[in-house]
Amino acid sequence: MIVVMDQTSAPELAEDVAAALRAEDMQVLRSRCHGRAHLISTGTAPRGLAERIRPLPGVESVVDTEDALRFTGRAYQRADTVVDVAGVPIGGPAFVVVAGPCAVENRAQMSDSAHGVALAGGAILRGGAYKPRTSPYSFQGLGRAGLRLLAEQREVTGLPIITEVLDVADLDDVLEVADILQVGTRNMSNATLLRAIGRSGRPVLLKRGMAATIEEWLLAAEYILSEGNPDVVLCERGIRTFEPATRFTLDLSAVAAVRRISHLPVIVDPSHAAGRTDLVRPLALAAAAVGADGVMIDVHPDAAGALCDAGQALHPKELAELTADLGRLLTATGRVLAVPPPRAMPARPRALATEGV
Amino acid sequence: MIVVMDQTSAPELAEDVAAALRAEDMQVLRSRCHGRAHLISTGTAPRGLAERIRPLPGVESVVDTEDALRFTGRAYQRADTVVDVAGVPIGGPAFVVVAGPCAVENRAQMSDSAHGVALAGGAILRGGAYKPRTSPYSFQGLGRAGLRLLAEQREVTGLPIITEVLDVADLDDVLEVADILQVGTRNMSNATLLRAIGRSGRPVLLKRGMAATIEEWLLAAEYILSEGNPDVVLCERGIRTFEPATRFTLDLSAVAAVRRISHLPVIVDPSHAAGRTDLVRPLALAAAAVGADGVMIDVHPDAAGALCDAGQALHPKELAELTADLGRLLTATGRVLAVPPPRAMPARPRALATEGV
Amino acid sequence: MIVVMDQTSAPELAEDVAAALRAEDMQVLRSRCHGRAHLISTGTAPRGLAERIRPLPGVESVVDTEDALRFTGRAYQRADTVVDVAGVPIGGPAFVVVAGPCAVENRAQMSDSAHGVALAGGAILRGGAYKPRTSPYSFQGLGRAGLRLLAEQREVTGLPIITEVLDVADLDDVLEVADILQVGTRNMSNATLLRAIGRSGRPVLLKRGMAATIEEWLLAAEYILSEGNPDVVLCERGIRTFEPATRFTLDLSAVAAVRRISHLPVIVDPSHAAGRTDLVRPLALAAAAVGADGVMIDVHPDAAGALCDAGQALHPKELAELTADLGRLLTATGRVLAVPPPRAMPARPRALATEGV
Amino acid sequence: MIVVMDQTSAPELAEDVAAALRAEDMQVLRSRCHGRAHLISTGTAPRGLAERIRPLPGVESVVDTEDALRFTGRAYQRADTVVDVAGVPIGGPAFVVVAGPCAVENRAQMSDSAHGVALAGGAILRGGAYKPRTSPYSFQGLGRAGLRLLAEQREVTGLPIITEVLDVADLDDVLEVADILQVGTRNMSNATLLRAIGRSGRPVLLKRGMAATIEEWLLAAEYILSEGNPDVVLCERGIRTFEPATRFTLDLSAVAAVRRISHLPVIVDPSHAAGRTDLVRPLALAAAAVGADGVMIDVHPDAAGALCDAGQALHPKELAELTADLGRLLTATGRVLAVPPPRAMPARPRALATEGV
Repeated sequence: MIVVMDQTSAPELAEDVAAALRAEDMQVLRSRCHGRAHLISTGTAPRGLAERIRPLPGVESVVDTEDALRFTGRAYQRADTVVDVAGVPIGGPAFVVVAGPCAVENRAQMSDSAHGVALAGGAILRGGAYKPRTSPYSFQGLGRAGLRLLAEQREVTGLPIITEVLDVADLDDVLEVADILQVGTRNMSNATLLRAIGRSGRPVLLKRGMAATIEEWLLAAEYILSEGNPDVVLCERGIRTFEPATRFTLDLSAVAAVRRISHLPVIVDPSHAAGRTDLVRPLALAAAAVGADGVMIDVHPDAAGALCDAGQALHPKELAELTADLGRLLTATGRVLAVPPPRAMPARPRALATEGV
Repeated sequence: MIVVMDQTSAPELAEDVAAALRAEDMQVLRSRCHGRAHLISTGTAPRGLAERIRPLPGVESVVDTEDALRFTGRAYQRADTVVDVAGVPIGGPAFVVVAGPCAVENRAQMSDSAHGVALAGGAILRGGAYKPRTSPYSFQGLGRAGLRLLAEQREVTGLPIITEVLDVADLDDVLEVADILQVGTRNMSNATLLRAIGRSGRPVLLKRGMAATIEEWLLAAEYILSEGNPDVVLCERGIRTFEPATRFTLDLSAVAAVRRISHLPVIVDPSHAAGRTDLVRPLALAAAAVGADGVMIDVHPDAAGALCDAGQALHPKELAELTADLGRLLTATGRVLAVPPPRAMPARPRALATEGV
Repeated sequence: MIVVMDQTSAPELAEDVAAALRAEDMQVLRSRCHGRAHLISTGTAPRGLAERIRPLPGVESVVDTEDALRFTGRAYQRADTVVDVAGVPIGGPAFVVVAGPCAVENRAQMSDSAHGVALAGGAILRGGAYKPRTSPYSFQGLGRAGLRLLAEQREVTGLPIITEVLDVADLDDVLEVADILQVGTRNMSNATLLRAIGRSGRPVLLKRGMAATIEEWLLAAEYILSEGNPDVVLCERGIRTFEPATRFTLDLSAVAAVRRISHLPVIVDPSHAAGRTDLVRPLALAAAAVGADGVMIDVHPDAAGALCDAGQALHPKELAELTADLGRLLTATGRVLAVPPPRAMPARPRALATEGV
Repeated sequence: MIVVMDQTSAPELAEDVAAALRAEDMQVLRSRCHGRAHLISTGTAPRGLAERIRPLPGVESVVDTEDALRFTGRAYQRADTVVDVAGVPIGGPAFVVVAGPCAVENRAQMSDSAHGVALAGGAILRGGAYKPRTSPYSFQGLGRAGLRLLAEQREVTGLPIITEVLDVADLDDVLEVADILQVGTRNMSNATLLRAIGRSGRPVLLKRGMAATIEEWLLAAEYILSEGNPDVVLCERGIRTFEPATRFTLDLSAVAAVRRISHLPVIVDPSHAAGRTDLVRPLALAAAAVGADGVMIDVHPDAAGALCDAGQALHPKELAELTADLGRLLTATGRVLAVPPPRAMPARPRALATEGV
């Protein structure tokens, strides 16, 4: 049962309603969305409870529902959500190209990547400072030093930054730099992290778990929205199947299916899905054609030498060719490429003083 | 080991070579491709056998290889294969729309479907006379009566016909009508059927098994090509995964991956993959963008009442909208829609005398 | 709708009922089971049809059902089916060990295998004369010569024979030798073959398709039973998943699940599922514990040199150890190992005159 | 490259070696196992580095390896690990039955469950105080109040406790109660949590991710062992496949396969895998037969009314029948059921003063 409080009601009234629910052995979660407090109660509601709650002071409406897709579903909001990432819209008529290296390695690599992305028509710069790795002995990312390098490139190129947060303990550090947070496939079901991000209010890109159904993916988004953060971008990145020719099987049907159920924007990561450079271009074009709101592309100035996922990154020059192809295809379907915010990339980067990385 | 005989060599010479191979305990398969006899021998070749075979009369070349993708691989033929289906090319710059009902039901349905497909810009008419069904109690197709209805619509509309052959016993009947044969997902590994089709020389569309790897799919094609029939069109139709929102998961990465390995054309069946009308349009557009050579679309004049796979077919009017969208997208990428052969659809169908169906 | 005819009714009466059904635009399939003719009609039955058919002469009962598991379900027969394979029961308290080489190669190999299996406590001898292969260039089996070698070993050891039939064209040949036919995973959906086997009346082992759901597997069995052949043994042999450590993932839950739905016996093939010798023993024991009615084990006197699936076969000595372990486990659960028919293996094989293989 | 320090060497020496590695641009992780410090360095080792590190003071050995299964592999330890859980051994000849409700609900439920488990022959009591849920609106567990109820039942029955930890923030609380921690399928790749548990030194049961390969599962264990905690028990709980008849597909092959690669004990959770009460017994028996070291069974005194996963729990009476069956099967294979520690369950529980739950 969900109780939506009146926008102007005093917080104490919500507390009274919560107490009334608890008195009936219901658990109560607090949420906030579109300026209204929501009380989400779980447990089996005794008969007639909704009728008793509805007339309480401050209550706007009571939804006696079991529907789990409370905030992510089209029933809640018919119009498409557009997430504003420091001036770059995700969702709506524009198609966003997010690009950059899998892992931040050093200043030269990030500078080359950032300029390459900006010149190639990318609108948001990606780079991992904290890397989720299958093996404890693999490179785990530069951490805070990596974040500083990302901030530096935003300063120089004006591109907004997306970077992954692995852990609640790192969230404050990441929030200092990220214009949009990234939750990776391994963390899609990490409720603690999702809730903390929900409370942060920062836009977030939520990757689909590699074996998550569409419903589970939307329920993970629901963890974030139910904390009052409506700015969630979904990201399809391939699911696990028996086919060995690609690292994962990119599920473009899911993009089309999600758009029917949910108002949230969806982008596609063909680089991690395929794990092969040669399939990135055709899959990115297919993502645009299927109706995705953007793509996230692995780009590295020296792809073969990358510390993480070597062999799946495009060179910035290849990215430029891809965005040109995307532009033509989008035009034919009445859409356009999203552009970075106006101040992006004034000139060559100045030399900045940071700790040597 | 594969022995390619000289194009002009007498058949007896091939027989001599085969005998020489058998004398070494090798099994010998006979094949013919591009005008040359091939002897494909299996078993472990004794050391030096290739050297002893090479100088025999009539031998053009000996390939001492274990490579199983003998004829389907790019190593055999670099240029893309274009399959001519009664005047409609599959492969090359044109993109083909194959459309029609899943099952042939009666004359009115076929007439409405065929005219709808022709007017909507479809180039090949599909319809199943023999239906592979999971349950023995489901409608199994009209059989020969269904074939006659297909032939009738070809006569009227000029559209080439594709129809499925389930069984070697029906092959002769189907060959009388089909401009291109269809092998369904359940028969992809039916070696007997594949070989018989290989010997028939008729173009064939080979659907991917619902749990077949790309390699197994190409090896199935190899059964057909190794019998001397080079006119194979591959068809991706979804693979089985854990995701319940779609009937199968359409694997568009496989289309791009296959095109790198093989010279054979690949088309996509979004209708059977998704099992949902609302995903057909976005997936067909994605298929065009990913580089497929065409799509096969379920179309029915009365979709809800279809005897087979009701609820996944488009209405002819929706097909017309889809081909218009496809045309725009293809133009943007330098390609065009394939057109049916010149004589297609002179006017309204004449009344034809056939057994009442 | 299924019409069951009286056991003593004349065949003409069934014909009259069929005509009555066809007059209502229903398709009619003929079947025979437990001595009664069944007319299975498909299509949408007009309202009141069952009531009009029920009083017709010769009609015993009319089932107005959509239930597809007509003959395989527990609703049709509560008690477990026991299939008699030339004196060896499959189903019931005994647990059967079927063993032998994947492919019949030559007389020495078959003789060593057959004696090894008999001495190790196997009750049925397997061996493939016709081999379904992914590649057209792999060894395809000895065909009829292989069948003769199997017959020879039955003569010598008394063990009943199981061998695969790939094709209706080979069925008559295979029926001369096989005490129980085998349908492989690639042919589970081959309706033509299933129906022909149904008409043959010979016991049959039906392997699960590698991507078939339990329901689809039982519907495939239904094709055989609906033709009047009740002697179907199911065989779980692994399904396709993402896990690369085993060739397939053996689905022992399916064994337990099938036994709740169906009265048919179920055996397990751990050799093909795992594709690894070292997992055969633990998986065979698990199969016995989960309630399977037997196992089918790949055995070869020279496992490393096998022409087909080398590296997954046990040596006969290892089979003997396994059956000893199985015996102990079965005893603990109130079951026993099935024994071969009384006359099995009189002494060393006599020298038999057959064509040199 | 892994540097193992001498057991008696001063910590400063390890620091010197770490500095030497960092001077060569290697990243250095610290670990401790079997009383020895390990320095695990990642990055590409320059030629000759191992030779320069080996003679440094305090260095016992240098392994110049890329092998990721450093501590979990049989190469590191040939003998099976036996994990001591407050007097109950997991691994070795005894087979452990872990049982209890999915979620701790209230005192009466836990008291009934704990006594039922103890009387039925269970050796460890499970119960979830923190529940990972797909939906934010599902019951999320009682948290600390649930932990207190578990502690209370340990006091009364003497059964060691296993309970899940979802989050590093809850770890200290959980450590006060849990004799063995549980990491759930959704957290298998949560490196932060795995490392913290590694540092805690408490035994831990690590469930396989629902789409994790065996290798990824062992690498997750490696995160724990590389922090110096050798007491890891693996738990197979079903993987995601296309089969809808069971919630997951229990992969018993993985149990056998893991035992060949790793020395860690493996138990099986048939309740969550199947999601169906009727399959728990056969799958538990199969787990014992395949060589697992135990099972974890969902038990609830009122299964239909459970707040979490209702319909998959056994009644304590059914558990007693299952352990009797397991005992017989284990005896036949030379094994026995593990018994709870001597002081378990003195009599009826005393009334304990705790906050009302």
